[in-house]
Amino acid sequence: MTAQHSTEDSPKTCFITPPASSLDNCATELHPLMAVPEEKPKQQSDHAQEKPKTSPRTTRACILKGLSYFAGDMTPFAKWMERQFILLQLIDWVLRGAAQVMFVNNPLSGLIIFAGLILQNYWWALNGFVGTLFATLSALILQQNRGAIAAGLYGYNGILVGLLMAVFSNKGNWYWWLLLPNIFMSMMCPIVSSALASINSRWDLPVFTLPFNILVCLHMVATGHHNHHFPQVLIQPRSELANITWAEIDLNKLFMSVPVGIGQVYGCDNPWTGGIFIIALFISSPITCIHAVLGSAVGMVSGLALAAPFGDIYFGLWGYNCVLACIAIGGMFYALTWQVHLLAITCAFFCAYLGSAIANIMSTFGLPACTWPFCLSALTFLLITTGTDTIFKLPLAKVTYPEKNLYNFKKEKTEKVEKEMKEKNEQQKVLDDELIQNEKEQLRIQIEQMEEGNMTQEDEVKKDEVQTVIEAIL
Amino acid sequence: MTAQHSTEDSPKTCFITPPASSLDNCATELHPLMAVPEEKPKQQSDHAQEKPKTSPRTTRACILKGLSYFAGDMTPFAKWMERQFILLQLIDWVLRGAAQVMFVNNPLSGLIIFAGLILQNYWWALNGFVGTLFATLSALILQQNRGAIAAGLYGYNGILVGLLMAVFSNKGNWYWWLLLPNIFMSMMCPIVSSALASINSRWDLPVFTLPFNILVCLHMVATGHHNHHFPQVLIQPRSELANITWAEIDLNKLFMSVPVGIGQVYGCDNPWTGGIFIIALFISSPITCIHAVLGSAVGMVSGLALAAPFGDIYFGLWGYNCVLACIAIGGMFYALTWQVHLLAITCAFFCAYLGSAIANIMSTFGLPACTWPFCLSALTFLLITTGTDTIFKLPLAKVTYPEKNLYNFKKEKTEKVEKEMKEKNEQQKVLDDELIQNEKEQLRIQIEQMEEGNMTQEDEVKKDEVQTVIEAIL
Amino acid sequence: MTAQHSTEDSPKTCFITPPASSLDNCATELHPLMAVPEEKPKQQSDHAQEKPKTSPRTTRACILKGLSYFAGDMTPFAKWMERQFILLQLIDWVLRGAAQVMFVNNPLSGLIIFAGLILQNYWWALNGFVGTLFATLSALILQQNRGAIAAGLYGYNGILVGLLMAVFSNKGNWYWWLLLPNIFMSMMCPIVSSALASINSRWDLPVFTLPFNILVCLHMVATGHHNHHFPQVLIQPRSELANITWAEIDLNKLFMSVPVGIGQVYGCDNPWTGGIFIIALFISSPITCIHAVLGSAVGMVSGLALAAPFGDIYFGLWGYNCVLACIAIGGMFYALTWQVHLLAITCAFFCAYLGSAIANIMSTFGLPACTWPFCLSALTFLLITTGTDTIFKLPLAKVTYPEKNLYNFKKEKTEKVEKEMKEKNEQQKVLDDELIQNEKEQLRIQIEQMEEGNMTQEDEVKKDEVQTVIEAIL
Repeated sequence: MTAQHSTEDSPKTCFITPPASSLDNCATELHPLMAVPEEKPKQQSDHAQEKPKTSPRTTRACILKGLSYFAGDMTPFAKWMERQFILLQLIDWVLRGAAQVMFVNNPLSGLIIFAGLILQNYWWALNGFVGTLFATLSALILQQNRGAIAAGLYGYNGILVGLLMAVFSNKGNWYWWLLLPNIFMSMMCPIVSSALASINSRWDLPVFTLPFNILVCLHMVATGHHNHHFPQVLIQPRSELANITWAEIDLNKLFMSVPVGIGQVYGCDNPWTGGIFIIALFISSPITCIHAVLGSAVGMVSGLALAAPFGDIYFGLWGYNCVLACIAIGGMFYALTWQVHLLAITCAFFCAYLGSAIANIMSTFGLPACTWPFCLSALTFLLITTGTDTIFKLPLAKVTYPEKNLYNFKKEKTEKVEKEMKEKNEQQKVLDDELIQNEKEQLRIQIEQMEEGNMTQEDEVKKDEVQTVIEAIL
Repeated sequence: MTAQHSTEDSPKTCFITPPASSLDNCATELHPLMAVPEEKPKQQSDHAQEKPKTSPRTTRACILKGLSYFAGDMTPFAKWMERQFILLQLIDWVLRGAAQVMFVNNPLSGLIIFAGLILQNYWWALNGFVGTLFATLSALILQQNRGAIAAGLYGYNGILVGLLMAVFSNKGNWYWWLLLPNIFMSMMCPIVSSALASINSRWDLPVFTLPFNILVCLHMVATGHHNHHFPQVLIQPRSELANITWAEIDLNKLFMSVPVGIGQVYGCDNPWTGGIFIIALFISSPITCIHAVLGSAVGMVSGLALAAPFGDIYFGLWGYNCVLACIAIGGMFYALTWQVHLLAITCAFFCAYLGSAIANIMSTFGLPACTWPFCLSALTFLLITTGTDTIFKLPLAKVTYPEKNLYNFKKEKTEKVEKEMKEKNEQQKVLDDELIQNEKEQLRIQIEQMEEGNMTQEDEVKKDEVQTVIEAIL
Repeated sequence: MTAQHSTEDSPKTCFITPPASSLDNCATELHPLMAVPEEKPKQQSDHAQEKPKTSPRTTRACILKGLSYFAGDMTPFAKWMERQFILLQLIDWVLRGAAQVMFVNNPLSGLIIFAGLILQNYWWALNGFVGTLFATLSALILQQNRGAIAAGLYGYNGILVGLLMAVFSNKGNWYWWLLLPNIFMSMMCPIVSSALASINSRWDLPVFTLPFNILVCLHMVATGHHNHHFPQVLIQPRSELANITWAEIDLNKLFMSVPVGIGQVYGCDNPWTGGIFIIALFISSPITCIHAVLGSAVGMVSGLALAAPFGDIYFGLWGYNCVLACIAIGGMFYALTWQVHLLAITCAFFCAYLGSAIANIMSTFGLPACTWPFCLSALTFLLITTGTDTIFKLPLAKVTYPEKNLYNFKKEKTEKVEKEMKEKNEQQKVLDDELIQNEKEQLRIQIEQMEEGNMTQEDEVKKDEVQTVIEAIL
């Protein structure tokens, strides 16, 4: 494919937006898990007709075309994959599933994330892979929506279940029996996802990581710390005043808590792993990446404000929920405007507060907070209704990634404005025509009256004037 | 406006019902927070036509007119306010918000309630005011429904959040830093309200004080008793048998627990404050006032029945949820019949039971019961469906205050009966006409047959008879 | 009624299916508690027309007819009951309510279950009876759907509330004051049922034993272990490693845990009581019976897999939720195919896991797990949506008992296939007709063309051929 060709494909895009035809495929990615994807066969042909208009800005378009091969949701790659062997496809789905934890539908990001996990811990990475694989397989067995499976929407709960069950196991690494509950719980993911989607779709809400939260908490509390087969690490409620001396604060560690917070989304406390995740996010969507960093920082600040022990903050426990909440609100499920940006930051603060509350409650049962705070705060912020049109919640079936969401939102807006303008113009024209018609009619009546009555010279003059006016109008 | 005039305005009302035209405005007050209020332009003109019928009962109507200026929901005042400066309006909204905790949409009641709060504790009253103010401001910023804001529906959670955060703070009075989380949580109120309304409106249910419950519990459990910045009072689960000696019961205190229970709705344990609140309720709606007292008494009895420590009963902890539940069911969201009255008392008993249960569960996490028991019991009782039409749940958009709800319910009922009667009469008339027509037709056919055939004398006689019958009918 | 007669009544049934006319009545039994039952007046007449077709297989039909008098849902008996004295009807409703805990709508099963309860403990049986009675009476007072009351759908929560309040009371047997909260809570059952049905009916889900779970937990946690009037048995969270020595396992007790698990549905630990319950299930529906035993076995295996203390397993605590979950999924709310059978077993495993988790959480509050695990797991598995048509969720209004559900499902399926075939044939016929018409038209045109032009001999021959072809077609 030549550079010339590529310019014809994406002529009007101003960011990493892939060719418009890819829109059809992507639209179905994040829809409620069971809804039938809407088909849009016409758009393809519209796009074909648009082609001849382009020729300038070749270099830039060339770059954009190149970007579309590995950035965004890698639609060309997904299309190429559809014709490959099923096992290769399965790897694609698993990688996308790994990245979907951060709302990224990109196998390259997934690959980098797996690299980060391996850097953290081999055993955890293996459990994560097993979890994603079996969750995806279970979705296939249960005949769930193929588009959703291909977008990794059945895998992301699986990777979290696998990872966190390994992280919180008290038996240490390479305790092979752990794979049994891991596989069972991963295979339950699509069932719980499907059930929750049936409920949440009534409000056009995604299920987020609720299945993961439910299943990991279920496993941990069902076995507990005192169990022969699958003991969990001991988590206990705080019962005394934490020792917080502001002089002892380690600014270096505080700064490092931002990438660590992003790493903790996958249960990893290695700052380098967190850094690798940031790169994985940036490849697919810079807006997502920025909001992730912002969310982690907000979480850190909230921890300081609520007098949390410094250790927790350094360990990233205040960050990971805010990271997810900030990404979800900031451009993913709302079209990004500056009001939405502020809303995302508010949501991150609320999420940090909620995180502290849920962590305290869950510790009574020996449980970690998981990503409950993110799920609950993001769902709350997705349920609000306002009178402004600057806070626009995207329909779930049209959610892709922030940049394309924004592009689609703006396009629709301009189209709407144009349509309204057109309608207004037409109405105006109709009104004008009527006015002229009325005027003519009146003048004609006047003339007839004059002709009927006795005409004085003044009248004659007037009649001539009227006649000229009529001629002028016609 | 003369007395004569006033009689023309509310001719048929037998209670504090304000002029019918005010109905249009009030109808939108308690509707689901985001629903667009239905317009009823016709009613206004209907009302105008009704005017000439009135002239007697002038004195009584005069009193009713006077009452409508400060009782009920003070619609004339609300209308006058609409044309005032925004800051004055804001004060009106804040006062209405303060009273809306008890479902009272009346700024005068709000003012009296604030007086009661000041009598209790200056610092608490200040926090309550700040909470209401910022909750209302936040609703304005988020562009929520203006009618709902003006009715104080975004303020009542704010006042409770502000008050209770001050009540449960372990730092004592005048700890100014507390205003920071107070303002943050108050501003979150409209967000949580809006989100919950999106869910509850599916079943036409109000959000009650759920946002307050969620946010105060969130703040308290997020910080906890062992916190440097915002410590909470220590609440612990009961772990031993309470010392209950029936001989030691203090009947005086037991009697005082009724007003204290009403005061505890706002977290106040001063019986005088509770007494002032009773006056505030009576001004707006006597039915509400009676059910509040009844609810508090039911709570007290339940506490004795379930062997609660006397201290808790004296302190009003068994009363406040029952107060709210009894008001909500007894005439507010159901039209008041005696069956509904019994239902309200049952609900109060259930609420007391639930209150004890929730208090025990929440104490495990160091939390008070807040008004969760009221919310859950009232929602349960609003969700039931029965075959009787004596238990009629008002549509949320038509809820105002018990007296007007009852008036509207009865009016609709009589209108319905009249309409049915009318339809029945018309149907009967049509049937009768048809019958007569058929009879005539038959007679005519008979006559024709007679004329055609050979007529004997008997037939002649018969024909004459028939003719006379026809004439009689015509 | 003679045997000959009975064959005419149920000619096509291959199992215990009662006469088709009974379908009309049963269909309304398990529908969402308030929905108006759909009337099917036509079916009755269809049935009448089917009568003359039957005469063979008389003996078998005779047996089936005989079975229909005491197996399935005993529709003939229910019909006969409708004409009896109200107190007799009430006993029928109470007995059906007792059996409905296991989804069995059969008074004979109810009677046997009461016998089992009496074998276990007189006082418990009395409390169970009082609970069922008052729950049913309360439903009558609240004017709930008469069909649902007659099917015992308002009684089954009552019997569980009554039984379990007696089981968990720390005051021992014959503490008569316990009847007071028992009656109050039983009478609250229809209220909570109705409220939950309002919510669950949105997803066409039953309320299961949720009202029982809510009300018993409410009573237990409201009073607690340390209460003067109604103390509960002490339940505490496990805080140390259970002593599990695999050598000590008692295979006899392990085997007995299967019937004990079924007995524990009603809180009974006597294996004979469990055995009696198995008989009660078998009488009404063998499929239900098989799934009950299977569920109990799955629970036992899960207990061993998750290293539960042997005592808990022997006591049936791992079985009863799985029993209910396995019955509900295996043929009751889904039409039984082998995929559904596998799903039911998966659900039982999930339920066992969930049971352990919920028991651990609830013990923090001094509560037993009740049947929360069953309710939550069964609701989850009823909410899933799949692409296969082998997993078919029956509409709630058409749920009766597994055998009839399966029969109806198959009948509908064959009817659907037949209808499709018929439509296809008709379409084919229309297409064929059109084709022939077109051919004729073409031939005619050809003939006309020939006649117009100069005809050579070859043409003449051709024309003749064409003419014969036309004649052949006509």
